[in-house]
Amino acid sequence: MSANNMAYADLMAHVRQTEALSKVAERLGWDQETMMPRGAAEQRGEEMAAMEGVLHARRTDPRIEGWLAAAEAPDEVAAAQLYHVRRSFARATKVPGDLAQELARVTSVAQGIWASARAADKVADFLPTLARVIELRRQEAACLAQGGDLYDALIDDYEPEASAESLGAMFGRMRPRLVALREAVLGAPVPAALTGHFPQEAQLRLARDLATAFGYDWSRGRIDLAVHPFSSGGGDDSRITTRVVESEPFNCIYSTIHEVGHSSYELAIDPDYAMTPLGHGVSMGVHESQSRIYENQLGRSRAFTGWIWGEMRSRFGDFGMDSADAFYAAVNRVQPGFIRTEADEVHYNLHIMMRFDLERALIRGDLLVGDLEAAWNDRFMADFGVAVDRPSNGMLQDVHWSVGLFGYFPTYTLGNVYAGCLNKALRAAVPGLDADLARGETAAATGWLRENLQRHGGLRTPRETITHACGFEPSEGPLLDYLEAKFRGLYRL
Amino acid sequence: MSANNMAYADLMAHVRQTEALSKVAERLGWDQETMMPRGAAEQRGEEMAAMEGVLHARRTDPRIEGWLAAAEAPDEVAAAQLYHVRRSFARATKVPGDLAQELARVTSVAQGIWASARAADKVADFLPTLARVIELRRQEAACLAQGGDLYDALIDDYEPEASAESLGAMFGRMRPRLVALREAVLGAPVPAALTGHFPQEAQLRLARDLATAFGYDWSRGRIDLAVHPFSSGGGDDSRITTRVVESEPFNCIYSTIHEVGHSSYELAIDPDYAMTPLGHGVSMGVHESQSRIYENQLGRSRAFTGWIWGEMRSRFGDFGMDSADAFYAAVNRVQPGFIRTEADEVHYNLHIMMRFDLERALIRGDLLVGDLEAAWNDRFMADFGVAVDRPSNGMLQDVHWSVGLFGYFPTYTLGNVYAGCLNKALRAAVPGLDADLARGETAAATGWLRENLQRHGGLRTPRETITHACGFEPSEGPLLDYLEAKFRGLYRL
Repeated sequence: MSANNMAYADLMAHVRQTEALSKVAERLGWDQETMMPRGAAEQRGEEMAAMEGVLHARRTDPRIEGWLAAAEAPDEVAAAQLYHVRRSFARATKVPGDLAQELARVTSVAQGIWASARAADKVADFLPTLARVIELRRQEAACLAQGGDLYDALIDDYEPEASAESLGAMFGRMRPRLVALREAVLGAPVPAALTGHFPQEAQLRLARDLATAFGYDWSRGRIDLAVHPFSSGGGDDSRITTRVVESEPFNCIYSTIHEVGHSSYELAIDPDYAMTPLGHGVSMGVHESQSRIYENQLGRSRAFTGWIWGEMRSRFGDFGMDSADAFYAAVNRVQPGFIRTEADEVHYNLHIMMRFDLERALIRGDLLVGDLEAAWNDRFMADFGVAVDRPSNGMLQDVHWSVGLFGYFPTYTLGNVYAGCLNKALRAAVPGLDADLARGETAAATGWLRENLQRHGGLRTPRETITHACGFEPSEGPLLDYLEAKFRGLYRL
Repeated sequence: MSANNMAYADLMAHVRQTEALSKVAERLGWDQETMMPRGAAEQRGEEMAAMEGVLHARRTDPRIEGWLAAAEAPDEVAAAQLYHVRRSFARATKVPGDLAQELARVTSVAQGIWASARAADKVADFLPTLARVIELRRQEAACLAQGGDLYDALIDDYEPEASAESLGAMFGRMRPRLVALREAVLGAPVPAALTGHFPQEAQLRLARDLATAFGYDWSRGRIDLAVHPFSSGGGDDSRITTRVVESEPFNCIYSTIHEVGHSSYELAIDPDYAMTPLGHGVSMGVHESQSRIYENQLGRSRAFTGWIWGEMRSRFGDFGMDSADAFYAAVNRVQPGFIRTEADEVHYNLHIMMRFDLERALIRGDLLVGDLEAAWNDRFMADFGVAVDRPSNGMLQDVHWSVGLFGYFPTYTLGNVYAGCLNKALRAAVPGLDADLARGETAAATGWLRENLQRHGGLRTPRETITHACGFEPSEGPLLDYLEAKFRGLYRL
């Protein structure tokens, strides 16, 4: 082996163990939200901080610089590995280890505080913690930005290549068409909503069957209940959570399909990339494109909802939806609502645009945490025409800020945009797809996504990943076209 | 702060993070046996190896030597901390990091292989793995023993101060009285056994209520199902597992109480010792004394079984036990059986003595792994007068060897011996105990144990811990006296 190849081998051996340890930290996070006894919260904070200390030390190991300088990349896979290691090293060396550990400790404990505050509907219980999280993330952003924009520095963690400016410009182009569509739809007769009682156990059985229908690999995953649905882990162990509201089965159904999309991406990545930087979804936006296309373009399609309707009738009996068309309309009912995760496809991105503006202002220091609730409620009234009735329907609804995820929200809309592009390409590549979906069969769709996108992991940049799969450059056009066609058809506009 | 105190503070800050990381590794082990999807076994092996690499590097950090040389111990707590760090450093520096990592990886994967082999009753499926585990543990023992006895070096991991010679001598003193008692009991009329069907859900509810009756702190623990009952973790997060056989509720009942004993010990340790070497049970023998006194001297007493009998009648209806006395006799029914964990108190230690001799021979190289099944079965016939009918009733029954726990089994009998001593002291200190137990109240007993033993964690050596609690030096006498009195009474000998 040449000295250059030795350097590459040594570097990858180091990185491989770092990856294994980061999987441990992620598993610990899963445990915290699903299994951990409540009294262990403080201790878990110390454990998370200790893990972060280890990870930070490994990511800033001074030998990495030498390995990177000497290593040779004989092929595009090795070149991509080196790109990711270089990025990780550059990022990690900018942030002091103490700050990284403190962030891990504080955000671990903050999750439980957020959950309690949300349950009690008390903003004041959460504000000191949120202020501390923001303070720490701003400190970190200052280290990373090196004089540049703080919020951009945080976005970069979740979506390389993106910036507040580029995302804001895209949101600006999207908003008029979304608002026009919303106005048109809200002027039309309102379809009947689903009502009734759907017992938890039966919902969970249906959720499992839906996961199976979408090809979830149970030998390498599992599903549990949590306050906030999420997916966690990768390689051969990617788990999902869901939640159940007995009066609203769409909550469990669509959060499950969404998380199956995330996990399926992780589980589909080429096993050759396991325990390396290529062995992850390449960005949060691309990740969200997978969860969203599973959930919406496939899961909320007329064809697939027809199959779900049949499944629900055989499980829950007559629940007041006489036809598959009525059920399709209920699934896709457009109405202003408080909760982002329950929003219809027309409103969803408007929620994100609001989060984007608020968190950008928080991180830039233009909005103080004490003013956040008022700012949230004012903006919600302006964007949705509804007064927030309680904090759990307002600024306490999402876990993200408690765990320091600032810069993450915009990737949700980016993911929707990418899902729009992928859906266009998928429909062209698999013309008989609706016939499959009507029988509850998703293999053609998930197989196309696996082959063209998922298996490649971090081999290409996020935009290149989408372009490679679609055969065209991504833009917001296909998503907006899809939404207009779908909802104008559904509402007979 | 003086330089000496600075050294102590720096050392303890280092140790504290190491403790946090070792708790992470332990939580990962719990996850593996309760939650992990099967397909993740290989990946988990890599994760465990990576964690062991981190722990080994921290435990052998060259700065520790300097800190230890400079540190001052102003009080007995600090002195005990330094004692433990010195021991850990001396041990860790003798074992190469690569070997420690390989052991972690191999034993992690071996667990799943053992479980599959046990389920399929195929020794051959497990032998190559067992051979590899033994080979690695022998290598490790050779590093530790530095010319001394390999098996003693492994015992030292679980029971400082103990040796094969001292344990063997104690077993030699115990065997004649145990065998004589067994012969006497087996010559008497056999009490009726419990029969019937006890549904899993109802057994698990009872198990939870029993844990509550023994004071288990649910805010810092949880109970789940696993192949092998165990307790895991400490500080503010100590979890237990149990298993259910619907025809044999004593299995679930007594394994639950047993594990509650272990977890209660960990959860009772002085919070000032959290995340330090004093914050653990001091040895496996002392640990087992807690699980055993909860399970046997308390849980299988005439008084407490009377309360369980009432609880079971109210939950399961009439299950064919007409009186609390008959139930007590069924709980304590003495009979030769294959399974150690289900053995009565008379037979239990005979199982351990057999494991002790076999594993000592394996580690010393006197017994080859290919000859183990025959050696096991011959010895079982000699000691118990019964032919092993299948490997899951023989050498595949216990998880221990798959995870490399050689030198661990004898601590079970040592724990029984310690439990005998503690029971003698407890009964003298709390004269009205049986009246409490008859009402399902254990607070006086568990409070005495907490105050006199559990809260001290690793402050004293194992024997000193028992002596401090009992007020006398431990020996096997009290256990044998207790067993003879109990079973001669029960069998009217």
